[in-house]
Amino acid sequence: MKFGGTSVADLERIRRVARLVNAEREAGRQVAVVVSAMSGKTNELVAWTDGAGAAAPGLTPSDDEYDVVVASGEQVTAGLLAMTLRNMGVPARSWTGWQIPIIADDAHGRARIDEIDPTKLGAAMDGGEVAVIAGFQGVTRDGRIATLGRGGSDTSAVAIAAALGCGCDIYTDVDGVYTTDPRIESKARKLARISYEEMLEMASLGAKVLQTRSVELAMAYNVPLRVLSSFVEPGEAPGPGEDHLGTIVCDEEEIVEKRIVSGVAYSRDEAKISLFGLPDHPGVSSTIFGALADANVNVDMIVQSKARTADTANMEFTVGKRDAQRAVEIVRSVQPTVGFEDVQVNDDVAKVSVIGVGMRSHTGVAKSMFEALASKGVNIQVISTSEIKISVLIDAAYTELAVRALHAAYGLDQL
Amino acid sequence: MKFGGTSVADLERIRRVARLVNAEREAGRQVAVVVSAMSGKTNELVAWTDGAGAAAPGLTPSDDEYDVVVASGEQVTAGLLAMTLRNMGVPARSWTGWQIPIIADDAHGRARIDEIDPTKLGAAMDGGEVAVIAGFQGVTRDGRIATLGRGGSDTSAVAIAAALGCGCDIYTDVDGVYTTDPRIESKARKLARISYEEMLEMASLGAKVLQTRSVELAMAYNVPLRVLSSFVEPGEAPGPGEDHLGTIVCDEEEIVEKRIVSGVAYSRDEAKISLFGLPDHPGVSSTIFGALADANVNVDMIVQSKARTADTANMEFTVGKRDAQRAVEIVRSVQPTVGFEDVQVNDDVAKVSVIGVGMRSHTGVAKSMFEALASKGVNIQVISTSEIKISVLIDAAYTELAVRALHAAYGLDQL
Repeated sequence: MKFGGTSVADLERIRRVARLVNAEREAGRQVAVVVSAMSGKTNELVAWTDGAGAAAPGLTPSDDEYDVVVASGEQVTAGLLAMTLRNMGVPARSWTGWQIPIIADDAHGRARIDEIDPTKLGAAMDGGEVAVIAGFQGVTRDGRIATLGRGGSDTSAVAIAAALGCGCDIYTDVDGVYTTDPRIESKARKLARISYEEMLEMASLGAKVLQTRSVELAMAYNVPLRVLSSFVEPGEAPGPGEDHLGTIVCDEEEIVEKRIVSGVAYSRDEAKISLFGLPDHPGVSSTIFGALADANVNVDMIVQSKARTADTANMEFTVGKRDAQRAVEIVRSVQPTVGFEDVQVNDDVAKVSVIGVGMRSHTGVAKSMFEALASKGVNIQVISTSEIKISVLIDAAYTELAVRALHAAYGLDQL
Repeated sequence: MKFGGTSVADLERIRRVARLVNAEREAGRQVAVVVSAMSGKTNELVAWTDGAGAAAPGLTPSDDEYDVVVASGEQVTAGLLAMTLRNMGVPARSWTGWQIPIIADDAHGRARIDEIDPTKLGAAMDGGEVAVIAGFQGVTRDGRIATLGRGGSDTSAVAIAAALGCGCDIYTDVDGVYTTDPRIESKARKLARISYEEMLEMASLGAKVLQTRSVELAMAYNVPLRVLSSFVEPGEAPGPGEDHLGTIVCDEEEIVEKRIVSGVAYSRDEAKISLFGLPDHPGVSSTIFGALADANVNVDMIVQSKARTADTANMEFTVGKRDAQRAVEIVRSVQPTVGFEDVQVNDDVAKVSVIGVGMRSHTGVAKSMFEALASKGVNIQVISTSEIKISVLIDAAYTELAVRALHAAYGLDQL
């Protein structure tokens, strides 16, 4: 069981989590619980590290000390939940990353888990104890604290489940994975099951319900994942049309009801950079994208087109909003070498995507998408596709309209 | 160097601490720094553990989980100070209790340090790194976090100094040890030196500048202690009549200027329990004080006197204010066995003490004390003495008057 920051935001919520844990235990199961920091605490800690100059440029990196500070939030929650469980009469103890140990590499602030030794943890659980584990953290081979990056508690939970050979229930503030964001489309439906690959695309295309890396890990180790709500009391009856079963993330083969498209995702964290009047000869793209890659700017969609009148080309690509200004500066710095005429940036754009493993075997998905958007007067600026998704970049003002049009076009409200 | 909670209360103060550390380093010394949690943080964490039922009666004790939660505060400060030092160009790293390791016993919440292995710490310092150590914590032999109790960072600092074979500078919000509390007597003088034994009495009799256990430890391992202000910038010139040298706590032999009394301490955290009409036969005291000891109520001053008219005795003793009600209940519970007539409690009392190693060789100290108090009309309720101190219990309203009278009587304003 994994509980995020909003699920453990205060002592009252921690008590509810304890009741959910106890219900699992009373159903005869051994339980390991992974917890995040109390909502808001990580931000407080991160703000302090910023003030202490964690990210000060040109100085010795302090990422290892950042981890010392930030990992403390999860430690606090783990202690409080273990205490609360004991006071309900449930044997429990907390485990930090170094106590288990969860061995991580030394890429501080975004470390990857190398290895988990489940011996001590398993023995304690076999002895009847609930294991309450501080998420988001491991320990390096030389004994320093390493954190896994934002949302890393999901990854901790999946890795622990893989090490223990069990499934992983991710409790969160929504009751499952939806066909799209219910705040935009009230007809959004909860999916009973979704494949790892679809979930991975959903997560990386903007759906915030699970962290991308945790889904990758679950897929690699074949850990059955379930997403469900932490805001339910154990034993509480579901409302009409509801269930408390959440969404199961599993292998494609385990999904009986076939559908072509499983969901519509969107992201407003996009900016489009346009280059005009590029000389049309080899090496231009590699100079530009090489410079961006060296600066760790992640480029997403790319299109290039011949200019109408001259022997030059135009190019458009997208980056995350917060990288936009830096991307423009980098592009300008290679202007003398590359020799384009103009660069423009537009961050008033959004990316809308349809995702579904059914696309592999069905044609016509792109056509339906473009028709649905055209019928609402939504202009497509850039298109990118993969085996199981199609993404389009549009004017940000049309985001909700486009999401609802696509949701209806693929019959997702009929599931 | 050890810095308490008020000295690291925010990032600005942490930067000043970093400057003080750097000044030591630039003076050519290797530095280990022990830090407390940021002021207020420990209280926040303790309040959460209370809410989670850490102290819930009749249930499995959660003291080990209390430690997991509360020890996180010092970890945060250590990370932030290490970061700040690095950003000043000073090589530094943080150390938690388990990383050093500081081995403690498993009396969670009030653990004692068993052993410190200074090998790794010393090697890092020899390599030119400032060691920033999370105070107040150790790790048990089975790998759990243990805290040393309130004010335990002083103890951490002295123990680290003993392990490293160096002196220990305690930076605090006052600039040294005073003859008495300057908030009560403006003529209080800073002592250049004070003996371990005197400091121990001062601390246990109410002076809050150092924690009793840290002084005991310094005395046992002969660690030279110095108390000085953290609110001074490195290189800042002292004001008229001031110095930045603090107070040195050391062996009696190292103090040249001899004086009979070194300080006047007071404590308002006192309550007096009076028992009337006790049968005057053996075993009565042991029944009463045995019952109190079994309940962990710490009894301080005790007097017993024959009643004037009957074949019975009266008895008075003092306990800490927060134990008063419990003490009365315990005494009442043994009333059927002991058979006294009445019990009364008075928590409107204060203990005022004069302390000085000179009392060993000088007589008349008590006489001066009683005369000074009598001349101001202060009535003495209970007296207790040891080799180097005399304490009296008085009406709390006379506390300041008594402190000032005694300060003058022993010429402490003339030092």
